[in-house]
Amino acid sequence: MPRKSLLKPALTTLFLLLLSSYFIFIAFFSPNPNLNSFVSRENVINSPTVKVYMYDLPRKFTYGVIESYAMARGGIKAPVDDDSLLTYPGNQHSAEWHLFSDLNRVDRVNSAVTRVFDPEQADLFYVPFFSSLSLVVNPIRPAATATEGRVVYNDEEMQEGLIGWLEEQGYWKRNNGWDHVFVCQDPNALFKVVDRVKNGVLLVSDFGRLGRDQASLVKDVILPYSHRIRSFGGDAGVESRESLLFFMGNRYRKEGGKVRDLLFQILGNEEGVTIKHGAQSRESRRAASLGMHTSKFCLHPAGDTPSACRLFDAIVSLCVPVIVSDYVELPFEDVIDYRKIAVFVDTSSAVKPGYLIKLLRRVSTERILEFQQELKKVKRYFEYEDPNGTVKEIWRQVSLKLPLIKLMINRDKRLVKREFPEPDCSCLCSNQSGIHTTL
Amino acid sequence: MPRKSLLKPALTTLFLLLLSSYFIFIAFFSPNPNLNSFVSRENVINSPTVKVYMYDLPRKFTYGVIESYAMARGGIKAPVDDDSLLTYPGNQHSAEWHLFSDLNRVDRVNSAVTRVFDPEQADLFYVPFFSSLSLVVNPIRPAATATEGRVVYNDEEMQEGLIGWLEEQGYWKRNNGWDHVFVCQDPNALFKVVDRVKNGVLLVSDFGRLGRDQASLVKDVILPYSHRIRSFGGDAGVESRESLLFFMGNRYRKEGGKVRDLLFQILGNEEGVTIKHGAQSRESRRAASLGMHTSKFCLHPAGDTPSACRLFDAIVSLCVPVIVSDYVELPFEDVIDYRKIAVFVDTSSAVKPGYLIKLLRRVSTERILEFQQELKKVKRYFEYEDPNGTVKEIWRQVSLKLPLIKLMINRDKRLVKREFPEPDCSCLCSNQSGIHTTL
Repeated sequence: MPRKSLLKPALTTLFLLLLSSYFIFIAFFSPNPNLNSFVSRENVINSPTVKVYMYDLPRKFTYGVIESYAMARGGIKAPVDDDSLLTYPGNQHSAEWHLFSDLNRVDRVNSAVTRVFDPEQADLFYVPFFSSLSLVVNPIRPAATATEGRVVYNDEEMQEGLIGWLEEQGYWKRNNGWDHVFVCQDPNALFKVVDRVKNGVLLVSDFGRLGRDQASLVKDVILPYSHRIRSFGGDAGVESRESLLFFMGNRYRKEGGKVRDLLFQILGNEEGVTIKHGAQSRESRRAASLGMHTSKFCLHPAGDTPSACRLFDAIVSLCVPVIVSDYVELPFEDVIDYRKIAVFVDTSSAVKPGYLIKLLRRVSTERILEFQQELKKVKRYFEYEDPNGTVKEIWRQVSLKLPLIKLMINRDKRLVKREFPEPDCSCLCSNQSGIHTTL
Repeated sequence: MPRKSLLKPALTTLFLLLLSSYFIFIAFFSPNPNLNSFVSRENVINSPTVKVYMYDLPRKFTYGVIESYAMARGGIKAPVDDDSLLTYPGNQHSAEWHLFSDLNRVDRVNSAVTRVFDPEQADLFYVPFFSSLSLVVNPIRPAATATEGRVVYNDEEMQEGLIGWLEEQGYWKRNNGWDHVFVCQDPNALFKVVDRVKNGVLLVSDFGRLGRDQASLVKDVILPYSHRIRSFGGDAGVESRESLLFFMGNRYRKEGGKVRDLLFQILGNEEGVTIKHGAQSRESRRAASLGMHTSKFCLHPAGDTPSACRLFDAIVSLCVPVIVSDYVELPFEDVIDYRKIAVFVDTSSAVKPGYLIKLLRRVSTERILEFQQELKKVKRYFEYEDPNGTVKEIWRQVSLKLPLIKLMINRDKRLVKREFPEPDCSCLCSNQSGIHTTL
């Protein structure tokens, strides 16, 4: 008897002890598994996450785009019944796929945005049209095998179709689109309809093809390209990096072409410099991986628009980017100080014979190692597959837009007729320091 | 014996039960005492608060201003040794006092900003110069008694002195002022030096005297005036509000003067309308309190600048504001939908004989009660003394600026020389819906 009566309270005590320990743990430790973010309770504030509703778009705007892409290349012969058979093709503009997949995951935790299924609860509306893939569904040179069963696909019609569909949605009209989020990572994505979606948050690579009234750092989010070469798994170090500077890519591009060609001319014969023409192919990517993993610096000249995939390839290669692109905008610049991970040189200096190479040769090994250590710290921001990586950060950036979005929604609806000589804009203007290089 | 042995585990059990209950409570309930903000844990994210360092300015910029003000009016005869003897005078631009006092409190909790005493830890730097009071230290008509011992006080010299002091601070130079916060609630405060502080976050009443390159909704925070009449303590209702429309204030003002005079002419003889000239005095305020507490609508015409204290007097009076000020910017517009609490009418319509009064007479009692219910909900945002009121919200608004501030700091330092035909600005532009009234 006495044994039994002691056992019961003892067990109860043990149980309660465990229970309270659990809650002590819960109470004092942030549920955030990111160990870096441990902060004392007084300096933390609970903010509600931003609620995002993802439109259930007609299939043709999502999986249908992948299907058309695969059919146009003969990857599949006919439409499929099961969407899980469709694989989004590897490309540098795959943010649209990663964001869509992320919102579709059932185990979403630790994100700045929460998916809601009732649009009435939503702060923001995500439009998951695969606008960048849609642009390239029709291959430049259609595969012979694919021609026969080819579906007629017209990206411009898709864009128009999307707007047509949106215009039937009450939530689109309700706030003039201010609370809608569009992904258009390829600088040409959504191009035909951009004026009709410009109130929304645009997820873009740069502003190269967008007007001042269409996109800005204040309203929109700059996305990194998905890197196309494999990440460098090794540590910081220069032993295996014999080459000083590496570049492989298109020599001639539209707007950015001039600087590329000039850099080829100037750097072509410099010792320790590899600068060569290369197109998009698996083989090129393999060669580029090798080059970037064995070089100290990697050149990032402007292409057709100020941004390019190459910057992100360089970052994950721990190859210090040398950015020669005066109008480039960079992803997540509030949390990443790019001067710590890259060298900026203005175009007119960079194309002066001898300038760039002299500049880079002067950089000490210690300095390069510092750059590499910093690159390692921020690498995760450029890994779309990392649970603590790009996708998480994109949603955080989107969530930061909400207060200004709400302000604009409320303000627009009460603005009465005014005599205004110019557009009614709120701006943040830069100082234009005008340095030649950050080195 | 058996009694004793049962008592001990029972007490232990009770103790642990209480302990675990406590931690269950802590774990599941937000520490935020604002009951409205209860959200399930999945929809909450812990964000670190923004760390603010308040400069320990030379005394002449803070208590010294109050002292000079009091001496110029004969409130005190000579400088005091003990700053706690100085009382910041009641005025509509007292945000500077409330923000300063708030940061000086030792028991700050539940704020979006945490005060830090090590500038190295700071995200933002607060410059607590009493710039609005400084502007009015010298009375328009100096009191006879005060003339003798009067200290020579020159606001412009103070402004210059502040900049001189700041320019010796390393943290001011470090990020070109982007991370500094200034309060200049009076539209003329800091006027002489505004171009030198314009990178910072400016806490202002409106943009009436500020250029596009100096201030904007994106960079700055719109503050409410401190209301100057007493809050209405009663409930929503129209029984004790016989009057339709009330206004008391200056008939002639600088820029806004024209509309005021026209409104006086048009509304002067309308039944149920009280519109009279009144200056700043205790007696006027008493009469205004009575008028605003017994009227359904309160007129808010533009003054010298688009904003005025009267709007906030109306709000705390539960007297539905009628805003006739086409260029007015409103505080906290991301969380307050002013269409729910006020009527907006464009100036050209408002001055058409009969228009305004016909519009207001058509409003049903139910609609007025709805407005009043909404006014009650947001009233706290306009109470500087409420711990859950204006000051808390100002800091929240300031904290929201941090990501863009960090972005600008990082970006500005890496921007290389560019050929840009126009200033490098990121803007958010409004649609200019151009309605005549929100009713």
